[in-house]
Amino acid sequence: MSEKKNMVEQITNMEDDFAQWYTDVVKKADLADYSDVGGCIVFRPYGYAVWELMQKGLDARFKESGHENVYMPLMIPESLLQKEKDHVEGFAPEVAWVTQGGSEKLTEKYCIRPTSETLFCSHYANLIHSWRDLPVLYNQWCSVVRWEKTTRPFLRTREFLWQEGHTAHATEEEAQAETIRMLNIYEEFCVNELAIPVIKGRKSDSEKFAGANATYSIESLMSDGRALQSATSHNFGDGFAKAFDIQYTDKNNQLRYVHQTSWGFTTRMIGGIIMVHGDNSGLILPPGVSPVQVIIIPIAAHKPGVLDKAEELRKLLALDIRVKMDTTDKSPGWKFSEYEMKGVPIRLELGPKDIEKNQCVLVRRDTGEKQAIDLRELKSTVNRLLNEIQTNMLEKAKSHMESRTFSAKSLDEMSQILNTNQGFVKAMWCGSESCEDLVKERTGATSRNIPFEQEHISDTCVACGEKAEHMVYWARAY
Amino acid sequence: MSEKKNMVEQITNMEDDFAQWYTDVVKKADLADYSDVGGCIVFRPYGYAVWELMQKGLDARFKESGHENVYMPLMIPESLLQKEKDHVEGFAPEVAWVTQGGSEKLTEKYCIRPTSETLFCSHYANLIHSWRDLPVLYNQWCSVVRWEKTTRPFLRTREFLWQEGHTAHATEEEAQAETIRMLNIYEEFCVNELAIPVIKGRKSDSEKFAGANATYSIESLMSDGRALQSATSHNFGDGFAKAFDIQYTDKNNQLRYVHQTSWGFTTRMIGGIIMVHGDNSGLILPPGVSPVQVIIIPIAAHKPGVLDKAEELRKLLALDIRVKMDTTDKSPGWKFSEYEMKGVPIRLELGPKDIEKNQCVLVRRDTGEKQAIDLRELKSTVNRLLNEIQTNMLEKAKSHMESRTFSAKSLDEMSQILNTNQGFVKAMWCGSESCEDLVKERTGATSRNIPFEQEHISDTCVACGEKAEHMVYWARAY
Repeated sequence: MSEKKNMVEQITNMEDDFAQWYTDVVKKADLADYSDVGGCIVFRPYGYAVWELMQKGLDARFKESGHENVYMPLMIPESLLQKEKDHVEGFAPEVAWVTQGGSEKLTEKYCIRPTSETLFCSHYANLIHSWRDLPVLYNQWCSVVRWEKTTRPFLRTREFLWQEGHTAHATEEEAQAETIRMLNIYEEFCVNELAIPVIKGRKSDSEKFAGANATYSIESLMSDGRALQSATSHNFGDGFAKAFDIQYTDKNNQLRYVHQTSWGFTTRMIGGIIMVHGDNSGLILPPGVSPVQVIIIPIAAHKPGVLDKAEELRKLLALDIRVKMDTTDKSPGWKFSEYEMKGVPIRLELGPKDIEKNQCVLVRRDTGEKQAIDLRELKSTVNRLLNEIQTNMLEKAKSHMESRTFSAKSLDEMSQILNTNQGFVKAMWCGSESCEDLVKERTGATSRNIPFEQEHISDTCVACGEKAEHMVYWARAY
Repeated sequence: MSEKKNMVEQITNMEDDFAQWYTDVVKKADLADYSDVGGCIVFRPYGYAVWELMQKGLDARFKESGHENVYMPLMIPESLLQKEKDHVEGFAPEVAWVTQGGSEKLTEKYCIRPTSETLFCSHYANLIHSWRDLPVLYNQWCSVVRWEKTTRPFLRTREFLWQEGHTAHATEEEAQAETIRMLNIYEEFCVNELAIPVIKGRKSDSEKFAGANATYSIESLMSDGRALQSATSHNFGDGFAKAFDIQYTDKNNQLRYVHQTSWGFTTRMIGGIIMVHGDNSGLILPPGVSPVQVIIIPIAAHKPGVLDKAEELRKLLALDIRVKMDTTDKSPGWKFSEYEMKGVPIRLELGPKDIEKNQCVLVRRDTGEKQAIDLRELKSTVNRLLNEIQTNMLEKAKSHMESRTFSAKSLDEMSQILNTNQGFVKAMWCGSESCEDLVKERTGATSRNIPFEQEHISDTCVACGEKAEHMVYWARAY
């Protein structure tokens, strides 16, 4: 026990210093390490394995809904980046520039992609000619670079991994339908696989993507009450199409501009999982994206029969569960706290006494609950419990979000709420950017989105008192 | 028929102009497109899907053999690249340099990774302390940039996709065993999945990787008789470990340097598949990495029952085969040549007359053979034929390689062979770099590798006539 306590003591309590707790979990759960490149991290095997499971889950959903993967160049010529005015203004200040290739100084500098709209548009202009070529439903898995000033593992790094979907459609309606369809896929994925409830809505104009007509987002709430933008989906209308001259001949032989969308999900959601589910013993992973769903720890492994029996259980479970057995010579207590730190959903302990009784001890990471399981029912019990854990984690996150969602009718009320108990604050808004600025200045909260599910909190804007147009979710955000 | 002829005529005959034939296949089979970035391509959905299947096959083999995936930063600080002398000399001339991030001019320039040894080494120096930490068996899937002067889709591009394995071991023997183990995995993958036979051996010193003690390769032969380096595996000894100070405490409490390896496989092998298997109708994909293994083409699709029956077959096959049905309004003849161009291994044609007889027509892409198949036996027949096609393609490639492997005892003989009939030439070598240079100057051939399976062609070096040390495979290469 002393060993276990020792290891747990290595991480900061989340109540004492949430930011330090977060960094401790990232390091101690072996998710990431710092690198020699300022603002960039090393994705360690355990962290990358979580990302691989996210990729697998999302990629299957993208393919199922008719999307195809492509790969575009890493570099964008400056002239290409500059073709869409809003887009270049939004991104140029934060890109990395390549100015030399081999021994030659480049005549035109290239930026490392901060996002790939311009490359996709240029490709579409070559590709799309007729209504028969539409829709084009592409996606790309890659890394992007944005020269952030302050960085934090997963949440904000100069290089991060993501997918960027880029589609082209014949009509405005189809592009809008795609934008919302992909937002819904992100929501379903977050809820069902990451056990993270989200608020779905439209971003205000000041928060939308550079070059978009409309940006939609899903927003989640971390356990410290701050919000995290969890995925975005953009409707570009025909703005990029006009800048890049992407036209097609419709069925009546008329030239028309395409309507486009893009949508993205990034490795920052590894940070989201940490901050929604984690506790003072470390990470808690939802079974849906847990690289190890069940860890088997043999007790008194030197005693005859223990390792054989443990291996038998591992093989049985391995048929449809991600299971691992730890046979290293570390003490069981050390292993218990190690896999708690790593957030493995279920731990099985098996020693000589358990084998005598044809049972093993099962410990749930989400509740800490400990129970003896008859080995004849092990497989069905583990399957049932993995589902229960997934559901329980979602319910817990939902309850937390609900308990931390407030409403306010004035800036004073909003300030008071956010200064005592951070969370989402629902409040009315007139639609003006100056009121958004005022809210931010007075409360530190930004508009997260204008949720699809509107409520009537009051008649007037929380900031200016004029007639309100929308109910908005506000929060201090990562 | 006229349509079909028309489409086929769009590609150059390989006998007339092999290079143009290659480019035509890349474009017409929708594998890749040119981009706005000099020397970089767009991986189109079909080409990227082939790469995804290669990734899946290799990744499963890497994980099965105990390797874990990680992700390192895209950029390398100049000072880090310079730590290993041979390495920086080999790569510095061909890297792209990032000199500006956002609005700040960087105080130290970063290169875009041409390969990631230096980043892995720096991480290992933090990670590895004790013999308990070894071996470290990591792999990374990413893109790399090398500022090539002349480029060609897949074969040589300024940015390409690859995997790079990086491992650290306690002893020299373990590192050597890993180097060969990974070379064997590449060989098995090329032979069994890509249907490409390879020559396995060690590279000469002049051809080895910058910073390696020894480089091993597998080499394959294209249908025009030129060789393609298909994968490499390097033993670094403790050279990088000394440059980066990667030490561990062994069981006797002694500080020791680790021994390292790296190994890589790239998207150039998409080019290899094109050039080993393709013909004048286009690409021929081995079933192992074919995104569509079976294409179903309904004939007279407007007639009652045809589409329903075709969909029934599609569903039946989809259980364990990558199958697609083409229901577009293009003519059957057009579709036939389109999927021939794309190299789909099996085509099924199903029309009203076939349905009456409870059969369909099956056409093999590799042999062009056409046969009527009883629908009750469709599934088993398709499975059997996919295996047969895979085997047949490998056998055909083996026969070709054998028929194009020659031996020579003098430079004149070697020249004569290569000027009439390109291929591998087996010839003896004394081991000196000057003789390699002479062979290249006189015949255009480079040493591909010193094969593990040595033969005795003669007693003396093909170039200088002094005592020979090794039998070498020589060829003109891509």
